[in-house]
Amino acid sequence: MKRIGVLTSGGDSPGMNAAIRAVVRKGIYHDLEVYGIYNGYAGLISGNIKKLELGSVGDIIHRGGTMLHSARCLEFKTPEGQQKGIEQLKKFGIEGLVVIGGDGSFQGAKKLSEQGYPTIGVPGTIDNDIPGTDFTIGFDTALNTIIDAIDKIRDTATSHERTYIIEVMGRDAGDLALWAGLADGAETILIPEEDHKMDQVVQKLQRGHERGKKHSIIIVAEGCGSGVDVAKEIERLTDFETRVTVLGHIQRGGSPTAFDRVLASRLGAQAVELLLEGKAGRTVGIENNKLVDYDITEVLSRKHSIDRQMYKLSQELSI
Amino acid sequence: MKRIGVLTSGGDSPGMNAAIRAVVRKGIYHDLEVYGIYNGYAGLISGNIKKLELGSVGDIIHRGGTMLHSARCLEFKTPEGQQKGIEQLKKFGIEGLVVIGGDGSFQGAKKLSEQGYPTIGVPGTIDNDIPGTDFTIGFDTALNTIIDAIDKIRDTATSHERTYIIEVMGRDAGDLALWAGLADGAETILIPEEDHKMDQVVQKLQRGHERGKKHSIIIVAEGCGSGVDVAKEIERLTDFETRVTVLGHIQRGGSPTAFDRVLASRLGAQAVELLLEGKAGRTVGIENNKLVDYDITEVLSRKHSIDRQMYKLSQELSI
Amino acid sequence: MKRIGVLTSGGDSPGMNAAIRAVVRKGIYHDLEVYGIYNGYAGLISGNIKKLELGSVGDIIHRGGTMLHSARCLEFKTPEGQQKGIEQLKKFGIEGLVVIGGDGSFQGAKKLSEQGYPTIGVPGTIDNDIPGTDFTIGFDTALNTIIDAIDKIRDTATSHERTYIIEVMGRDAGDLALWAGLADGAETILIPEEDHKMDQVVQKLQRGHERGKKHSIIIVAEGCGSGVDVAKEIERLTDFETRVTVLGHIQRGGSPTAFDRVLASRLGAQAVELLLEGKAGRTVGIENNKLVDYDITEVLSRKHSIDRQMYKLSQELSI
Amino acid sequence: MKRIGVLTSGGDSPGMNAAIRAVVRKGIYHDLEVYGIYNGYAGLISGNIKKLELGSVGDIIHRGGTMLHSARCLEFKTPEGQQKGIEQLKKFGIEGLVVIGGDGSFQGAKKLSEQGYPTIGVPGTIDNDIPGTDFTIGFDTALNTIIDAIDKIRDTATSHERTYIIEVMGRDAGDLALWAGLADGAETILIPEEDHKMDQVVQKLQRGHERGKKHSIIIVAEGCGSGVDVAKEIERLTDFETRVTVLGHIQRGGSPTAFDRVLASRLGAQAVELLLEGKAGRTVGIENNKLVDYDITEVLSRKHSIDRQMYKLSQELSI
Repeated sequence: MKRIGVLTSGGDSPGMNAAIRAVVRKGIYHDLEVYGIYNGYAGLISGNIKKLELGSVGDIIHRGGTMLHSARCLEFKTPEGQQKGIEQLKKFGIEGLVVIGGDGSFQGAKKLSEQGYPTIGVPGTIDNDIPGTDFTIGFDTALNTIIDAIDKIRDTATSHERTYIIEVMGRDAGDLALWAGLADGAETILIPEEDHKMDQVVQKLQRGHERGKKHSIIIVAEGCGSGVDVAKEIERLTDFETRVTVLGHIQRGGSPTAFDRVLASRLGAQAVELLLEGKAGRTVGIENNKLVDYDITEVLSRKHSIDRQMYKLSQELSI
Repeated sequence: MKRIGVLTSGGDSPGMNAAIRAVVRKGIYHDLEVYGIYNGYAGLISGNIKKLELGSVGDIIHRGGTMLHSARCLEFKTPEGQQKGIEQLKKFGIEGLVVIGGDGSFQGAKKLSEQGYPTIGVPGTIDNDIPGTDFTIGFDTALNTIIDAIDKIRDTATSHERTYIIEVMGRDAGDLALWAGLADGAETILIPEEDHKMDQVVQKLQRGHERGKKHSIIIVAEGCGSGVDVAKEIERLTDFETRVTVLGHIQRGGSPTAFDRVLASRLGAQAVELLLEGKAGRTVGIENNKLVDYDITEVLSRKHSIDRQMYKLSQELSI
Repeated sequence: MKRIGVLTSGGDSPGMNAAIRAVVRKGIYHDLEVYGIYNGYAGLISGNIKKLELGSVGDIIHRGGTMLHSARCLEFKTPEGQQKGIEQLKKFGIEGLVVIGGDGSFQGAKKLSEQGYPTIGVPGTIDNDIPGTDFTIGFDTALNTIIDAIDKIRDTATSHERTYIIEVMGRDAGDLALWAGLADGAETILIPEEDHKMDQVVQKLQRGHERGKKHSIIIVAEGCGSGVDVAKEIERLTDFETRVTVLGHIQRGGSPTAFDRVLASRLGAQAVELLLEGKAGRTVGIENNKLVDYDITEVLSRKHSIDRQMYKLSQELSI
Repeated sequence: MKRIGVLTSGGDSPGMNAAIRAVVRKGIYHDLEVYGIYNGYAGLISGNIKKLELGSVGDIIHRGGTMLHSARCLEFKTPEGQQKGIEQLKKFGIEGLVVIGGDGSFQGAKKLSEQGYPTIGVPGTIDNDIPGTDFTIGFDTALNTIIDAIDKIRDTATSHERTYIIEVMGRDAGDLALWAGLADGAETILIPEEDHKMDQVVQKLQRGHERGKKHSIIIVAEGCGSGVDVAKEIERLTDFETRVTVLGHIQRGGSPTAFDRVLASRLGAQAVELLLEGKAGRTVGIENNKLVDYDITEVLSRKHSIDRQMYKLSQELSI
């Protein structure tokens, strides 16, 4: 193998730049040429491709976002789109590809692999919802952004009987909400993996209130409905005052944490390692703090689940 | 004067603790006894009052919120409520009072002064909407919280034609929105002091789009309507995708910035200075980086206004 | 078991408060009474012991330091000191003890266990140098403090041919230096687990210089000698200008990261779980992201080692 | 005037990028062409000059350092060097120049002005030691970096009788030390503008110790000698344990605060305004929160002084 490519796709996550840097530097360390594909699969189709040098990835390890930009691309879901992409790769003489992204990005990587093109998936998403790895790139940073916001809310207005509701990202996965809730001692955590009865939520608020608690914090994963709706329901069932914060896209940004930079560096380098070993159609991950890799088709067929022991702990500690 | 009191009232703001600390330490430096009144005017009425020592204000200068707690109190708006408060102060032998808070808190301080009770107002609110001072305690911290959030949003999704809308606090005052917009190079800033035409907002977005801008940031002070409404209007008039972030109560929290701690220390100490000089019914402030004080009735009759030169600059730099 | 105690000992680390909180709340959840022992083993000997309630650990999960304070205590290294401690525990009716701290603290816990007193060790130190756990409480926070400092240094003075030398903590363990170096793309990482030849360090600087690098970053674990000495040696061997930063005790402070808070919560709760199961003389830890526990004597006999794969990666990526 | 230039010189400071951005955008707003001169006066002499567009200054307002790089340049101190610079400016058709930097940079600007070349100085340095402005660009950010470090130190080791000594920047100016000390409630502040007797410093430590203080913080401006020397002296005179932190170059970095970004934007734009008005040989500044400008020769002849009222306050509050 002489020449490899790298792209980022889907929603961006902090640490993607560190992963790109690792792909480039690990590649060059092994005398490969590394090409950057800009704007995800859209750029792959259109041939928005440039050679990257050591200097191209200087001073990016600590930056949020992705220097290769990202985009969603409907055309690449079609066989024609995929064919165009492979043609571009051949045109540039790129023999293997590293795709950094989430679920949807891996679907594209799978297609390329099925058509005989060596592709490795690197899990980059703040949602932590990809099987085959304990942590995805960006999760730790998003988590710290969330707890920083909740810490600020804690500071304020301890004088009122108020219920603060924080809506965090996570359409299908409650990891951000669960970890943030545990890290911040939230009274209640609403995640899509669990059924929640609002009357139980309210009962807990009332118990806390009777015990003299000045304020309560409820974390809602967006997959459980909007924070505003939860607030309305609480105000309907009680006379507690509520305040809603929707963190939104700030969760995707920020300089990556040390953990995410190290994870991204390890996974990016490992993807190159696999290409060098002639592997294809794999995803890399970290399990038990060790590097692992799996068949991408198998990973996409598995379903992410939350850590039930941690969920139980969050309930025991928030009595 | 032998004994003074201090209370915080209304919405809390970062730096209130530093102001309390300054009142206590400056008082003790001048051999006064200093009493803390808890829960604002409600605690004044109920006599929730305790003596504070040097050690009581140890390790609080860097903490958000207020160690004396705060509350809104309807009863204190009545002459009977005020009378109860004065009786408590007399019962405890407190001869002068420092009130840290915003507009509403100053109304209470004015009433006490009118009834012959020496009271000094210290401007503490994130909104920066109090006349008689260039800056209020908490404004600088809230501002940095906002720009930190916007910086994170900048990191993300440069690949889509997206308009990010950030709703910040400021019911009647656009200072937070204006400064944040200038500090973050926002394309558009919507403040209550100005009339805004949505078609002009949209034209500017379109001009930027044509020039190749990938994303735009619009900052909306809550006094101009909700961020969600602005987003709906933009999506109605254009085909731009929008994303809304409502920062909410995180703007009130956080460890105060150096500027707010220094400002709070200076204003808190100056309030004690005025009491020692036998002054009453005054507010302290900083103008032109120098300590000033004004008659509280006059301050309450004036209207806060934004810096028009800065607003003009924000428009020139966001072409 | 009806009543347990908890103490922190040795150098403090961010997350200790979250661990204390978990011990208290998990204990109360299981109807135990939980007593806090202040000032480490010194307070155990002198009987500086108070009952902790749910409210005692309110609003501390996000605070650096330890609410129980910590101290080094020579007396507890003697059998007499240990006997005094056990007598105090019996006097208070405390049947099991959780000790949060590092190496030295575990020695004390081992002694108590050997004398028949049920004690569980929870690894709390920023150095990450305790066997029986992949991560110690405080490591992740210290790491992020370090990379935040290095990021700031990156910003500055790219115009000069300068070598920035950052001295970080780690007397016997290079984990902080290694992870920080990997996370920040440092050119060279000097750790006590490796032999370093200054002429090789200098050669690498010169190679980078020839390739056009404007600045280089060298991270030195304090166990490898002082940053100032490294700087002198480089200035002796080359004509590069150097700048030294000694981060010192800021590495021990700061609000704990999400990772440290979650880790501390899990480990603190697990220590209580073990006491409830009748175990004694154990340490808790996290390995492969799962809770584990080991015999404390065995843990103290093992030697911490760095991850050689990561060290190799740091060299490959810093070409 | 059709074409102007901008350069940064000397030690960099956070906010310089925001100032560059303001020069470019304000210039373009008034239909000027704006050229960036790279590497300070060295680049001016060698003709390292490029045209800047709106897009050239996109996404830099929040970045530390300076995109134009900076350098110290001995040659520009000679009339020959200055002549070469003016020739380059003429060659590029640049009719006016904005110089962003400190004291030394202003000397160069003064020379250019004396030789008939219209130059405006914008004060950018973390030291806040330039007359003609209440604040320099970068001061507020450096200050917040310092207090963030001291806050972390506060967290730690409250159990020992320790004296923490923090060495901060400021060779001739004590502003950083004074403001940081006031903002963090430091026990003692050593600044070059004051004579300090170590026996008085020690007496204060001992008074605090007797009153039960667990730890003390001393801030030393580098102009007063090294933190290490202060520590040695304290250990010689007392039996207190000391810990030294030398913050070093982290004080120059970091994303600029809101205050610095706004200040930089206002001053950068004002410099362009002055050039448009045909002024030359001026410095811009902010006094009393209003824009001002002064003759550069006069500014360089004045001496910066600290705010004595604030110094007195710092002593009253640290009893």
